[in-house]
Amino acid sequence: MYNSKATISSINFKQVARALTIVENDLTESAELLKNLTFNKPTPIIGITGPPGAGKSTLVNELINNLLKEGNKIAVLAIDPTSPFNFGSLLGDRIRMASHFNHPDVFIRSLATRGSLGGLSVKTIEMADVLRAAGFDYVLIETVGVGQSEVEITGLADFTLVVLVPEAGDEIQHIKSGLMEIADAFIVNKADRADADIFFNNLKKITSQNKEEQTQIFKTVASQAIGIDEVTAFIKSSASQKNQRRELLLTQKAYQLIQHKLTRHIDKKKLQHAIAEALNTEGFNLYSFVDGYL
Amino acid sequence: MYNSKATISSINFKQVARALTIVENDLTESAELLKNLTFNKPTPIIGITGPPGAGKSTLVNELINNLLKEGNKIAVLAIDPTSPFNFGSLLGDRIRMASHFNHPDVFIRSLATRGSLGGLSVKTIEMADVLRAAGFDYVLIETVGVGQSEVEITGLADFTLVVLVPEAGDEIQHIKSGLMEIADAFIVNKADRADADIFFNNLKKITSQNKEEQTQIFKTVASQAIGIDEVTAFIKSSASQKNQRRELLLTQKAYQLIQHKLTRHIDKKKLQHAIAEALNTEGFNLYSFVDGYL
Repeated sequence: MYNSKATISSINFKQVARALTIVENDLTESAELLKNLTFNKPTPIIGITGPPGAGKSTLVNELINNLLKEGNKIAVLAIDPTSPFNFGSLLGDRIRMASHFNHPDVFIRSLATRGSLGGLSVKTIEMADVLRAAGFDYVLIETVGVGQSEVEITGLADFTLVVLVPEAGDEIQHIKSGLMEIADAFIVNKADRADADIFFNNLKKITSQNKEEQTQIFKTVASQAIGIDEVTAFIKSSASQKNQRRELLLTQKAYQLIQHKLTRHIDKKKLQHAIAEALNTEGFNLYSFVDGYL
Repeated sequence: MYNSKATISSINFKQVARALTIVENDLTESAELLKNLTFNKPTPIIGITGPPGAGKSTLVNELINNLLKEGNKIAVLAIDPTSPFNFGSLLGDRIRMASHFNHPDVFIRSLATRGSLGGLSVKTIEMADVLRAAGFDYVLIETVGVGQSEVEITGLADFTLVVLVPEAGDEIQHIKSGLMEIADAFIVNKADRADADIFFNNLKKITSQNKEEQTQIFKTVASQAIGIDEVTAFIKSSASQKNQRRELLLTQKAYQLIQHKLTRHIDKKKLQHAIAEALNTEGFNLYSFVDGYL
């Protein structure tokens, strides 16, 4: 399908956008489209995550600038774990990434996710695969979050960069503990802040515990394009290595897709009707109800 | 079962703890235990969420203090969306809540969740119901997060308090947009900060848009027990009202439980073996694989 063209000459952005829309909205052609995807090169998926305010979008902007200089074609999937009814944050990202919107080698798509279990990952898995098959050199997936959304990105991305800022919040330990295992590298952004070195050293100490190898940590000031070359070099060298986790990643993806297939037939409206009726009976118990419903 | 005793006199904390362990670890007795739960009073589940560093635990501490004064029995379920392999954050919460650990009317349980889809909600639904049936007057569920975990709390809690702090991060809009729809009330904690009033007014402006009724906003300085009485009063009045969303909440819970039942048989090890084998074939396509696997 569309990807046969993609590999011949340049990528047809309109076709990519259409394919993504088919997959995102689960249109009838979606299943066939996905089964016919072919992957002509090992396009790496790079996850970029971190708490709100860490400067992820600015950093992604600068990384794109660097990768473009070497003639790469780049796709960005910006995942917004907030509501589709509220477009504030999406607009924010769009404005920040605006400089790339007209560049012929950068394709950007936002995906607003309602946060419903199951839905998020499957859509993201599928859309990331569409982008991989389209012939981009790099697929960047940017997501914000502190809990769930980051854990999910590691199930998708070949490697994950976690962006942090130097700060002394009393729950910073909390953020870090969750991120520790998913980060292939940390980026301390806004590293020109006064307490940056203390933060950097603490992070270094924590990340070297319980690990055979020290996780790489980079210092950047994305707003001034400082430190971006080192991160770009890391991305390029990681991308060229064979992914040890490929089998595990694919298993995780397959698991999500199977879960989705097994449960997509559950009709929420019908379920609500049944609940409403059951509620009128004495001694309603949800667990007995579910047992009887299946 | 254990809850018959609970309603007669005081709550047997050891029995509650044992029941929670049975449910948390999905032991064989779990299904029977859940189906036999009886609810003798309409114990409200109060969700408390917000970004890291907002002071949720300190606030929960103070709310407990207030509710205890009136002779209430309180259960707290602290959900930690980080890894079970890293106990830093749990310890943090434990230390902060330590003052209540020996109080005969406060029961506290932490639940570390790996962030895997499906797993989190079902455990939390079940454990919250065990606590409700045990005869507590209030069940508080505390969780940290910016994305998924908050959305989940609204599927569980009868009403949800969102704790924020006055700050001017460039992505604060992002946090707020996701929280807007789930909050029954906002608490601006650390309200003695210099920019608190500006923040409060901005929040008021934003929350009054697209809503028929202004969402309540409270100012607190939890570390000095300021503003806690007002929040306590709100909790008590909300708890006494008939929950309009009860049917919808139960439908959401039922949906999660059904999803879980339909997918729990998937054997991840077997799946990984199949993936490893399939990877050796030419032109591997994940979507065709999943189609064939089912």
